[in-house]
Amino acid sequence: MKTLQKEKPSLHVFDTLESEVRSYCRSFPTVFTKAKGYTLWDAAGEEYIDFFAGAGALNYGHNNPVLKQKLLQYIQEDGVTHSLDMATEAKQQFLERFRQVILEPRGLSYKVQFPGPTGANSVESALKLARKVTERSTVIGFTNAFHGMTLGALSVTGNKFKRSGAGVPLHHSVSMPYDGYLGENFHTIDYMENYIQDTGSGISLPAAIIVETIQGEGGINVAGAEWLRRLEKLCKEHQIVLIVDDVQMGCGRTGTFFSFEASGITPDIVCLSKSIGGYGLPMALTLIRPELDIWEPGEHNGTFRGNNLAFITASEALRYWENNDFSKEIIDKGELLNLRLCSMVSSFPQLKGQVRGRGLMQGIAFETNGVAESLCELAFSKGLIMETSGTDSEVAKIMPPLIIDQTGLNRGLDILEQCMKELAARHYALA
Amino acid sequence: MKTLQKEKPSLHVFDTLESEVRSYCRSFPTVFTKAKGYTLWDAAGEEYIDFFAGAGALNYGHNNPVLKQKLLQYIQEDGVTHSLDMATEAKQQFLERFRQVILEPRGLSYKVQFPGPTGANSVESALKLARKVTERSTVIGFTNAFHGMTLGALSVTGNKFKRSGAGVPLHHSVSMPYDGYLGENFHTIDYMENYIQDTGSGISLPAAIIVETIQGEGGINVAGAEWLRRLEKLCKEHQIVLIVDDVQMGCGRTGTFFSFEASGITPDIVCLSKSIGGYGLPMALTLIRPELDIWEPGEHNGTFRGNNLAFITASEALRYWENNDFSKEIIDKGELLNLRLCSMVSSFPQLKGQVRGRGLMQGIAFETNGVAESLCELAFSKGLIMETSGTDSEVAKIMPPLIIDQTGLNRGLDILEQCMKELAARHYALA
Amino acid sequence: MKTLQKEKPSLHVFDTLESEVRSYCRSFPTVFTKAKGYTLWDAAGEEYIDFFAGAGALNYGHNNPVLKQKLLQYIQEDGVTHSLDMATEAKQQFLERFRQVILEPRGLSYKVQFPGPTGANSVESALKLARKVTERSTVIGFTNAFHGMTLGALSVTGNKFKRSGAGVPLHHSVSMPYDGYLGENFHTIDYMENYIQDTGSGISLPAAIIVETIQGEGGINVAGAEWLRRLEKLCKEHQIVLIVDDVQMGCGRTGTFFSFEASGITPDIVCLSKSIGGYGLPMALTLIRPELDIWEPGEHNGTFRGNNLAFITASEALRYWENNDFSKEIIDKGELLNLRLCSMVSSFPQLKGQVRGRGLMQGIAFETNGVAESLCELAFSKGLIMETSGTDSEVAKIMPPLIIDQTGLNRGLDILEQCMKELAARHYALA
Amino acid sequence: MKTLQKEKPSLHVFDTLESEVRSYCRSFPTVFTKAKGYTLWDAAGEEYIDFFAGAGALNYGHNNPVLKQKLLQYIQEDGVTHSLDMATEAKQQFLERFRQVILEPRGLSYKVQFPGPTGANSVESALKLARKVTERSTVIGFTNAFHGMTLGALSVTGNKFKRSGAGVPLHHSVSMPYDGYLGENFHTIDYMENYIQDTGSGISLPAAIIVETIQGEGGINVAGAEWLRRLEKLCKEHQIVLIVDDVQMGCGRTGTFFSFEASGITPDIVCLSKSIGGYGLPMALTLIRPELDIWEPGEHNGTFRGNNLAFITASEALRYWENNDFSKEIIDKGELLNLRLCSMVSSFPQLKGQVRGRGLMQGIAFETNGVAESLCELAFSKGLIMETSGTDSEVAKIMPPLIIDQTGLNRGLDILEQCMKELAARHYALA
Repeated sequence: MKTLQKEKPSLHVFDTLESEVRSYCRSFPTVFTKAKGYTLWDAAGEEYIDFFAGAGALNYGHNNPVLKQKLLQYIQEDGVTHSLDMATEAKQQFLERFRQVILEPRGLSYKVQFPGPTGANSVESALKLARKVTERSTVIGFTNAFHGMTLGALSVTGNKFKRSGAGVPLHHSVSMPYDGYLGENFHTIDYMENYIQDTGSGISLPAAIIVETIQGEGGINVAGAEWLRRLEKLCKEHQIVLIVDDVQMGCGRTGTFFSFEASGITPDIVCLSKSIGGYGLPMALTLIRPELDIWEPGEHNGTFRGNNLAFITASEALRYWENNDFSKEIIDKGELLNLRLCSMVSSFPQLKGQVRGRGLMQGIAFETNGVAESLCELAFSKGLIMETSGTDSEVAKIMPPLIIDQTGLNRGLDILEQCMKELAARHYALA
Repeated sequence: MKTLQKEKPSLHVFDTLESEVRSYCRSFPTVFTKAKGYTLWDAAGEEYIDFFAGAGALNYGHNNPVLKQKLLQYIQEDGVTHSLDMATEAKQQFLERFRQVILEPRGLSYKVQFPGPTGANSVESALKLARKVTERSTVIGFTNAFHGMTLGALSVTGNKFKRSGAGVPLHHSVSMPYDGYLGENFHTIDYMENYIQDTGSGISLPAAIIVETIQGEGGINVAGAEWLRRLEKLCKEHQIVLIVDDVQMGCGRTGTFFSFEASGITPDIVCLSKSIGGYGLPMALTLIRPELDIWEPGEHNGTFRGNNLAFITASEALRYWENNDFSKEIIDKGELLNLRLCSMVSSFPQLKGQVRGRGLMQGIAFETNGVAESLCELAFSKGLIMETSGTDSEVAKIMPPLIIDQTGLNRGLDILEQCMKELAARHYALA
Repeated sequence: MKTLQKEKPSLHVFDTLESEVRSYCRSFPTVFTKAKGYTLWDAAGEEYIDFFAGAGALNYGHNNPVLKQKLLQYIQEDGVTHSLDMATEAKQQFLERFRQVILEPRGLSYKVQFPGPTGANSVESALKLARKVTERSTVIGFTNAFHGMTLGALSVTGNKFKRSGAGVPLHHSVSMPYDGYLGENFHTIDYMENYIQDTGSGISLPAAIIVETIQGEGGINVAGAEWLRRLEKLCKEHQIVLIVDDVQMGCGRTGTFFSFEASGITPDIVCLSKSIGGYGLPMALTLIRPELDIWEPGEHNGTFRGNNLAFITASEALRYWENNDFSKEIIDKGELLNLRLCSMVSSFPQLKGQVRGRGLMQGIAFETNGVAESLCELAFSKGLIMETSGTDSEVAKIMPPLIIDQTGLNRGLDILEQCMKELAARHYALA
Repeated sequence: MKTLQKEKPSLHVFDTLESEVRSYCRSFPTVFTKAKGYTLWDAAGEEYIDFFAGAGALNYGHNNPVLKQKLLQYIQEDGVTHSLDMATEAKQQFLERFRQVILEPRGLSYKVQFPGPTGANSVESALKLARKVTERSTVIGFTNAFHGMTLGALSVTGNKFKRSGAGVPLHHSVSMPYDGYLGENFHTIDYMENYIQDTGSGISLPAAIIVETIQGEGGINVAGAEWLRRLEKLCKEHQIVLIVDDVQMGCGRTGTFFSFEASGITPDIVCLSKSIGGYGLPMALTLIRPELDIWEPGEHNGTFRGNNLAFITASEALRYWENNDFSKEIIDKGELLNLRLCSMVSSFPQLKGQVRGRGLMQGIAFETNGVAESLCELAFSKGLIMETSGTDSEVAKIMPPLIIDQTGLNRGLDILEQCMKELAARHYALA
């Protein structure tokens, strides 16, 4: 462990030419050049352990070597790169593999839509389809939800700062309290049920409810399995389309391929993106219960639905899911992570931290605003990349690539622990 | 020229597993495997000339060899693949090249936003920023406009089928008549001006006007240079943000890098995507007049803003714009294309065709619905890929990769001519 | 004719206690006490000729003596005053009279809804019903239209000042150009037809089109009979509900009971209010083609639907329509009015006036803003009450009670002529 | 007490000519002719005790003799009847009286707007002004709220049946749980506060909160005084405009002139209508804290703002508020009413009733749907007019004219008790 010493590469070009909207390059002020597994290097040669993993897009690590070989070979041989939604061999192979490795073993019969290469595309397509199917307009989203930055996705996102960026009032959505939003004794499903059933509640019967099983951006809020089952039941009883946005929590982040597997529910529509491409390449899927697949041809489209390079790496990445080994590894590493985080939190009680999350999506929520930000800033100075989440950036989030080994995980956590220690010391100095 | 003889590869996987929303794989019912320049091959070994070019995403051709080498090298060396909006060497290089090759020579001082990797992301970010800047909500779009499939982009899109796919009424937008929409004698800028100035017109002062200089999806409708200048003037006079959606028409499609160069206007915001990545990889830019760049950090974000593979090929593709040669070539090929199309139209007057477009975005509009579709279907059977456009699919669109050579262009046009001939003969038979 | 000399009554109570929103009391700064026919008196004893007629609510004059007797008698005998929408004898009598005197002779089979006592109530109910019937949301309104100040009515109103008063963006409506809006050579029905039929126009098939046959508030713009017929045809062809807002133009203002009689059209829904109560008492009707009357009981309601005092005077006022005499009188007086206005306009060409309107809804539109306002101000100082209209208050509006005699009409017009003369003189002085 | 024997007058005219939307004439199927105090008579000469009081518009009774004399005299003398918003003596007198009798003694400094003659007009004007003042769009309404049937008023109304009548999705509003909506242990102000303060809650800072102190239409739900005070505090802390819709609960219904007096709060805006006119004539007021009165002249208007007949009776009705006697009487009668209702509920426990409300707005909520409706139907057959409320019509509502004497009150309650007895007997028979 060390504090990085070399002079940081200049960000002049970014500061002068890129829009003010840029953000992560402000939190991690250096210029990155290379990456491998859970490690990034910058232009000054400094090395960083990556506990951010492309916000969940790099579950299989940076430049995963197996995927890389397939990718290089495909490009070398002039496989079709861009194909709109024409049929290609690469896409065919992906569809077959996805059915064989993911859908069939789980007893799922979803139809697969390629809605455009981003999570927001998947969310937008899911909302459109749910409205078309039900001929209703309202969609229920949850407090602290994050579903993306396009107008439809924003309308079911909780964050006021992001919402106000729309520049127009957001319509056709209702925000309901997420599991635990009002404390343990308040049953938010009861509340929602009441609103939906009561003819005087002031909301229409919704077309859909869209939910994340864990709210990553919203502060690592975890929905209980029982809560999810009651949510599914509520949807079934009222013919409401249940959409699980598994963009960040899917592809193994919580220990199973889909984050909802542990709860036993089967959503009507599932949104996947981020790590589905395997290599960090833009790709997204919308999985649709067959009865709901009433799209007209071309009713939703997009230029980059056929990113074949992503199909190649996506197919290859499914290797990780051919048996249960990877899943077990994630859960084991998640337990290690949890133990260490809990230990840190109790070692430095003055920081008033609370461990949240499961699998390799965990974090520490701090009572005092600013602590998580200081922690991440300090971590970066010591060669560890991690980000905050929560609307007040009150949670320090740990989401390493799933392929990280225990050594790497412990190295990162050692840095984190050192940072906690320094912050706690500062705290004493201030007190 | 030939009619393709071999048995087509099976589409069974697509027919059973992919959503009903799939479309181009219905028009071009085969499985593609390889691609190079303006040629595609399918799994049966058949060869196709590509006059569609990924709907404008493949201006530099499939798997352009110069770009390919850079791409392979970058991947080989484990350059950062996915970086959110962190600073990377690949992004830095792209920004520098873009400034040097594109912005500075044209006297443009745009700030560059990476809004997410699709054209719709760029449009959504442009609409949001225009509303934030002006604190107004209405945006004027045009009849037959196409800007994308997310809720914000849809709201300024003209096509009713696409719009109704939203499943909810679309708000905060007004549809105005495009240049020529009501015939030559109706001055649509006068009309719009009247609506904007008249305090009884029923519309609010808009935040922005979003326009394509040629409406590709809308039927190859070309806005005159004078019309664009008047539009810019109108926007200036009323402090309306002028957004040019150059997603399909930019990157040289009409002969200049930006499609609006010929008219002399300078939009406040420009949306770029499709061919900006050079190799068909998902990438988009939003160019912003510096005074308007009042984004808060992170106010618009997205996971795939940092598709570094695209940055690598995008930088390399800018080689084509270091001098005027490429531009001249495009214009020359556009003239050849125009001559041959005009000749075909007059050779087969019974098909009642009319040539439209400029540069390498041209097409034939047919009076009778169904002709363009039959033509494209026939062309495919003879190894030529081309698509229709227009809300009634009444236009057969020709948009080959810009790097196509005259031989390739003529080969494709020979097939087209043969198809016209056959259709004309059918027509006589029917008449 | 004279200039009023006495000191004006104090408006102190209004200035200090009434909201800033008050308006007509600013144009006519006195306190009125009595009224009869076409005459008003103020607290200082001054007499005013009324060419405003309660903005069309006093077609039968102030305190019409025949109606007054019926009203006094009903109150005296403790007839039910307020009855919600319970059945009363007064309401029954009105319904029977309305059917017998108005509907049956015109071959109309409308069902009658009492939507609440204001024009806006009628418009809101019409919009709701049209949307319910068609299951569509968009309603087309026209440039310079005025339909009322509640949120639904505002959404189809053209005036930007009024619209912006909503404080929120107005939705589910499209503003189309009224007859003549773009000059004589522009056929606005063609334009609208194009927008409705074209699948790329950016607007949905509307639920309804709402129209005034003459736009009173909008500047006395007159729709041609042929235009109205083409509008009706357009609606029929596309199953669009045609709503005529006859709130101001109905009840004889243009010479026939309904303003659309001359054109021969039969709207699907008609909105009536203002003079329907006869005595200036709040009352409104929504007339509905029977096939469209699919309301559920109580789906639209309101406390003051049963203003029985208005039913009593409304029934009595229908006497005027038992034969054609009244209609002829109005038309005759309209011709006199037109002659005199035309004469004034040509006598004072420097004022650049243009006569508009028909029946007893006429006015002079002035090229220069401010002239109409000066004229009305001057008129008031000489004992004549008249108002401006048009979004820039550019039209001086003449709408006396329909029962005015020729003497009264000429007396008012003499004052007006004198005012024109004085303004013209000022104009010379200024020039 | 008796069961009415005579043949009911025919409703044929209503059944054939009036729209299907008619409702109360279905619950009370007779034709009324005369009314006095708390008594109505029908065309067959039957007499009815009125426990409905025009849904709160007849607090001073039908055809109150004192008011009647003033009204007759005014009409007789040709006082101005209709005056738009011009100044009249009748209006001046009302304003002065209202200030002197109502505002000043309560230390209130409201400006007075005449927004049009209905409660919905007042609500619409309040929403518009709150949005203008705050430059925000969202308004919070409550579960089971009722504010009117125009589009803006509907958007803050809870009832789904009424809302869906709009035919379009309702925007710019959020429905929050009313006091007690989720049981006694759930503090709905905490919940709302959380939503308003939390930056991740998914709702914007609202322009206004609109509330009824007792929800009459919504089922006689009473907001606690402490709850109202916390609501006021919440609004103050966040600069949210607090609107009290006192249309039904104002004018003494709960024992004080304004229903909120008991709680000690001072709303920013108050909506008054129904009984403000005294005689059941259409009239409404919007009371505005002076600092918020930033209306432009004419920004909200309407034809029937100047219903002078209502001003005359409204002024006269204020006599009842010159001292506390009337208030005390109402409270006394409210206590009597409460005692008798509680007694009935405990006498017939099988009907599972629960007494609700305060002052002369009380009712019995029944656990089983249909009981309240049967009760009201039975009551009507015995000469007592009363209505249900609540979204499932589960509450039998008792709201007699406030001027009813104890004899009248007891006579009505005797009928009610008899009906309860008969229903209870039926219940035994069924059980």
